[in-house]
Amino acid sequence: MIPSPVLAVTSGEPAGVGPELTLQLALDERLPGRVVAVGDPRLLSERAALLDLDVTLIELQPGEPVPEARSGVLPVWPVALRAPCRPGELAVANAGYVLETLDVAIEACLGGRADAMVTAPLHKGVILDAGHAGFRGHTEYLRDACGVDEVVMMLATDSALHAGEPDWRGSAALRVALATTHLPLRQVADAITEASLERILRIVNADLTRWFGLVTPRIAVCGLNPHAGEGGHLGHEEIEVIEPCLERLRQEGMALDGPLPADTLFTPRHLAGIDAVLAMYHDQGLPVLKYAGFGRAANITLGLPIVRTSVDHGTALDLAGRGIADTGSLRVATALAAEMANRGSAATTP
Amino acid sequence: MIPSPVLAVTSGEPAGVGPELTLQLALDERLPGRVVAVGDPRLLSERAALLDLDVTLIELQPGEPVPEARSGVLPVWPVALRAPCRPGELAVANAGYVLETLDVAIEACLGGRADAMVTAPLHKGVILDAGHAGFRGHTEYLRDACGVDEVVMMLATDSALHAGEPDWRGSAALRVALATTHLPLRQVADAITEASLERILRIVNADLTRWFGLVTPRIAVCGLNPHAGEGGHLGHEEIEVIEPCLERLRQEGMALDGPLPADTLFTPRHLAGIDAVLAMYHDQGLPVLKYAGFGRAANITLGLPIVRTSVDHGTALDLAGRGIADTGSLRVATALAAEMANRGSAATTP
Repeated sequence: MIPSPVLAVTSGEPAGVGPELTLQLALDERLPGRVVAVGDPRLLSERAALLDLDVTLIELQPGEPVPEARSGVLPVWPVALRAPCRPGELAVANAGYVLETLDVAIEACLGGRADAMVTAPLHKGVILDAGHAGFRGHTEYLRDACGVDEVVMMLATDSALHAGEPDWRGSAALRVALATTHLPLRQVADAITEASLERILRIVNADLTRWFGLVTPRIAVCGLNPHAGEGGHLGHEEIEVIEPCLERLRQEGMALDGPLPADTLFTPRHLAGIDAVLAMYHDQGLPVLKYAGFGRAANITLGLPIVRTSVDHGTALDLAGRGIADTGSLRVATALAAEMANRGSAATTP
Repeated sequence: MIPSPVLAVTSGEPAGVGPELTLQLALDERLPGRVVAVGDPRLLSERAALLDLDVTLIELQPGEPVPEARSGVLPVWPVALRAPCRPGELAVANAGYVLETLDVAIEACLGGRADAMVTAPLHKGVILDAGHAGFRGHTEYLRDACGVDEVVMMLATDSALHAGEPDWRGSAALRVALATTHLPLRQVADAITEASLERILRIVNADLTRWFGLVTPRIAVCGLNPHAGEGGHLGHEEIEVIEPCLERLRQEGMALDGPLPADTLFTPRHLAGIDAVLAMYHDQGLPVLKYAGFGRAANITLGLPIVRTSVDHGTALDLAGRGIADTGSLRVATALAAEMANRGSAATTP
């Protein structure tokens, strides 16, 4: 029997909802792998007591194996808080703590002691305030820590809950990858070049194959302009940039549809048989993904040598310590991480 | 008893699906008003025969009243085709016919002989090919014909089917108006100014009141940039353009939320209590609207002195004459037109 994957869950900003969501995850009866929290055991224990969550923490020593999942038991890779923490109150002193939880999880994944990492939300502002001036977010931090040049952000809805199915094709899965992410709108058009699109599509195509078990993933690509440029009447980027790139990659055997008008692409008839959509920018792809996902969507970083998924929401400081934050996104992120880890290892094991 | 509203339905491009959708509408048992088709009676009669649709056409003379709705009976205001027409085959000669159907409906609405007009799709390309060089689409044609300077495009999902409810608030209605429509993406940021936003919000606010019976409509406004600019980190238009405009209009009493990140706005929690969303551009608002609407969305032109709704799809030349085109959008457009006409006349009748 193949042991279930080890899923390192970084509990995120200690003043936010991350710690309590991680604890609530450990109460799940059907965990898809061996979840191990990365964080301060005392913080987690205090938060469990505050919220009356019946979770037993097991502090693991370096090198100690992660036990099989058991509801109500949460193994922890300990990282010590730098300063006391109260729900909802950010402390600059703890920025280094948050980054250390990431380092621990990344090293475990790169070293083979974890099969995937799942990240609860951090607070970018407090990390910047603490003097980490170049910090742009989880995704870029992971990119640099893993030594790769480019990563791609993809969001997926709760198809992970179909993890028992042999193939996701035809399920209700919606996966949306982004050609650009956090850019002012007026910079988007210039940021999309044949070269950047080609790199991004190669990453999406390779990772859908590697981590999702799709032999020739079918990817639908949005146009940049409304109506995908309407034959040049509403913009030329489709003709000059997107189509030539898609045509070249199709000749290599990729299954690429498009460029297609975004407002017709996201309808059931057009999504049938599509494994992922590549949107050209943030607000072209994510409103519909989040509408469809209803709080059950998660974020996946493609292009890394490791599996990394994340919640799709922020620290929700106003909800922290109240036990009312929705666990949906963390559950989906965890299920997705497990499925990707299982498929990825199946693909590399003869 | 108030007579039911007269709804002039222009049957659109004769080679497309418009004529058959109009015929199928007449078979509806629960028509919300007195539908009168605008088009060539012989064309409609041939298309009915081709598709075996049991519809009796009644050719109305000028000045003749439109009879009460009866399933299977379709009154027609006749406009003569310029050339024979076969399904799927565009003919430049018939461009003038299509425009004349619009003129007839517009005159009827302006003259009080119709209470609303509903448009089946036309084919912009064939109208341009016929030499009407300035033709940009239904919406602009109506704007000019009605002598107004600015109109606003709003799409709505099938809340019209709740037409019996006293108030749409809280229903599943999703209405999305656009601050810019058919512009290349790289022109969007510069097209949005405080002045243009103010004009558009005044139109949306006034027409939601006039045609939808909302006393103080609550309008949620999207940011232009991802995360609504994230406090200036991802763009400055929210701070420099959108917020000052909203603040000024709030002081007049408008109920405006935002600017809000588009990817969190379109979730049930944030949409609760919102009467309409104003998206900054086409692909920020319409993918989610059409995903939510599942072919049951319609287009409404705000800012006109008359009621005009439209299907949200094109001529579908490949489906024409086959009887398989989906009538959903035309039914929603018709129901919406009836509701707007009823509310609008109620508002103006003491």
